[in-house]
Amino acid sequence: MSPDQVIAHLKKHVLFQGCTDAFLNDLAEKAVLQRLSKGQVLFLQHDEAKRFFLVLKGWIKLYRETLDGAQAIVDVVPSGQMFGEAPLFLDHTSSFGAEATDVSEVISLPLQPLEAELKKNPAFALEMLKHMAQRQQNQERELEHRDLQTAPQRIGCFILRLAKQDAEGSVTLHLPYDKNLVAQRLGMQPETFSRALSKLKKATNMEVKGSTIRLESLQTLAEFCCAGCSSTFPCGDLTSK
Amino acid sequence: MSPDQVIAHLKKHVLFQGCTDAFLNDLAEKAVLQRLSKGQVLFLQHDEAKRFFLVLKGWIKLYRETLDGAQAIVDVVPSGQMFGEAPLFLDHTSSFGAEATDVSEVISLPLQPLEAELKKNPAFALEMLKHMAQRQQNQERELEHRDLQTAPQRIGCFILRLAKQDAEGSVTLHLPYDKNLVAQRLGMQPETFSRALSKLKKATNMEVKGSTIRLESLQTLAEFCCAGCSSTFPCGDLTSK
Repeated sequence: MSPDQVIAHLKKHVLFQGCTDAFLNDLAEKAVLQRLSKGQVLFLQHDEAKRFFLVLKGWIKLYRETLDGAQAIVDVVPSGQMFGEAPLFLDHTSSFGAEATDVSEVISLPLQPLEAELKKNPAFALEMLKHMAQRQQNQERELEHRDLQTAPQRIGCFILRLAKQDAEGSVTLHLPYDKNLVAQRLGMQPETFSRALSKLKKATNMEVKGSTIRLESLQTLAEFCCAGCSSTFPCGDLTSK
Repeated sequence: MSPDQVIAHLKKHVLFQGCTDAFLNDLAEKAVLQRLSKGQVLFLQHDEAKRFFLVLKGWIKLYRETLDGAQAIVDVVPSGQMFGEAPLFLDHTSSFGAEATDVSEVISLPLQPLEAELKKNPAFALEMLKHMAQRQQNQERELEHRDLQTAPQRIGCFILRLAKQDAEGSVTLHLPYDKNLVAQRLGMQPETFSRALSKLKKATNMEVKGSTIRLESLQTLAEFCCAGCSSTFPCGDLTSK
């Protein structure tokens, strides 16, 4: 991949939109395109972190793992989003592992020029603060939902957030990855997920065939899920997609 | 409280240790000491945020609340720590409410000079990024523990993190606030907490009298809890207290 192509991808991410050419060139020069097969590990938790990543294709699972192999999913990162920059602000070791859940492509970028730019460019540092604050707010919501939403509500919320928030009438959606991974993403055992999905379908007249979901209206689903949430629908942190 | 006293308190927080006198004076000039009674609300979720806070005494509960009054605790902030700066990087509304869980004192500080300083001082912005990354890592750990630790392990982990991490032999600790709030902090119903605490006591020979906890050794407790965690004891994010 040419440096120009890397820069074009970077400029699609809000964090890099106001950046200087010099900085973007510096990043792009040392960028590497990595193609990953399904299940391929990109790095492990506790690894020394020297690079961060922008997803171009597929899904990257970020996870934390105990010695006996139990995994908690931190995030499943879609194309267009980045991960792996936080170690720059901590002890330069990664607090999670990263693994492709499907055939994926990522651009691997060096952390060093990112750090140098943050040190001299306060406008860029402020963009990075916005980026991290957004992620922090997402985690707060996630923790809230673990406490206050039922399992069917949590699955419903996951689905609701896939939709164009102002869609009217009946809506067809597609699960972005397989149900086992959705269950794991939501911190549920597969059996719990299965039972909760049945309840959700009954409560909201939702139809599910494979990965395709059909809803009579988003509003019905929102009424069901958002009763267990401190925010109101449409979700403030989602722009109209 | 005089501006000099405010500055002395600010300088105890790592975020403000490298700051210029001009900036600290600016913050201190508009600082207000607020005394709160037990249960007093400082601000509500969704309020417009114009100030941030440094806790001097007591405990401030940060929480998110659904329309029907169910609460999820985001954090319980001890003295010496700050909260309420994140809205600066989002939409200037607070993503949680704040309430004193005991007689408390906070210094209320204006967000505007903080924003101005971040815009012109990249070294300060980098300190703020470190501060937020640390908080993000704490939330990741919290989400991991919800997925992977049992209820007794989670209570044990809460207690373990109160201790001086390199303490040897038998250890006496004090719960920082009442058991109901600890339960709520951990996202547990009081009955679940009660049952889990009994199991924890049996499994680790822990004695609990009121808010006083006696352990034969930290190591026994760590062996019990850390089996359900992706990190190892002593906890990397805690300095030796």
